[in-house]
Amino acid sequence: MTAEQTFVDSALRSWRSNADRAGKFFGSLTNEELELQVAPTRNRLIYIWGHLTASNDAILPLFGFGPRRFPDLERMFVKNPDRAIATILRGPELREIWIELDVALWEQFQQLSPPDWLQRHQAVSPEEFLREPHRNRYASLLGRTAHLAYHFGQAILALRK
Amino acid sequence: MTAEQTFVDSALRSWRSNADRAGKFFGSLTNEELELQVAPTRNRLIYIWGHLTASNDAILPLFGFGPRRFPDLERMFVKNPDRAIATILRGPELREIWIELDVALWEQFQQLSPPDWLQRHQAVSPEEFLREPHRNRYASLLGRTAHLAYHFGQAILALRK
Repeated sequence: MTAEQTFVDSALRSWRSNADRAGKFFGSLTNEELELQVAPTRNRLIYIWGHLTASNDAILPLFGFGPRRFPDLERMFVKNPDRAIATILRGPELREIWIELDVALWEQFQQLSPPDWLQRHQAVSPEEFLREPHRNRYASLLGRTAHLAYHFGQAILALRK
Repeated sequence: MTAEQTFVDSALRSWRSNADRAGKFFGSLTNEELELQVAPTRNRLIYIWGHLTASNDAILPLFGFGPRRFPDLERMFVKNPDRAIATILRGPELREIWIELDVALWEQFQQLSPPDWLQRHQAVSPEEFLREPHRNRYASLLGRTAHLAYHFGQAILALRK
């Protein structure tokens, strides 16, 4: 493995570890447990799970892998706060979507070479990227991984004693 | 900047961003605010801040930068749970220590070349590292960054409404 491949491998392992931890945690919860809040007046677990799923869906267009597969997630779990929308997805549906996106992203990630990882993500224009080459796919992956960890740290507060 | 340097730069930016966010948040809290819990029966903010500070201190020996500077932090904020120890550091002291460690780590990080980053960390033996080359400084930095994000996600629950 070259040095460049090792850097990519490190970030992929970190993503895998954080995504697995979240998927295992949320995927094992009952519908009743998913109604629990992480703290009084704060988000329910179902909302945090949906929020992370929406964030994964958004990686598809951001990395140039194609359009979002579940565009409704954005409205339910990102643009609107928890409890603002009457009908949101429930646990069994989110579990299927989470797994589908997790598999799809992982397959796409495997196909990127180290230079591919350093290409711009789609939220930055070619002109901006010339000035700001750090706005690449790789940096976004690190950001998304930290985002997963951030909300997972909140989620476990609802259950662990 | 070579590709290898860009990978290192991405991880350093991610660390910087997460460390700055935590330092700014905790450093601006009053002693009274630091007594707040992130959720009922959970850790106080002062404990989470101390825990993250202890984690930063532990990077010094882990990365071969030298011994811990504040070995008491481990006992106060890692080995023992919140409220188990009667006398722990308070905000003003932690703020000084946080800044000292933040500056020291950042200076050391800057001096590592890409190959240095891919060297083993000190919690793995040379023999183990031959079999598990992913246990390098770089991977540890990504892990520590996720650890920062994880606890910061919890900490903001205590204050933001």
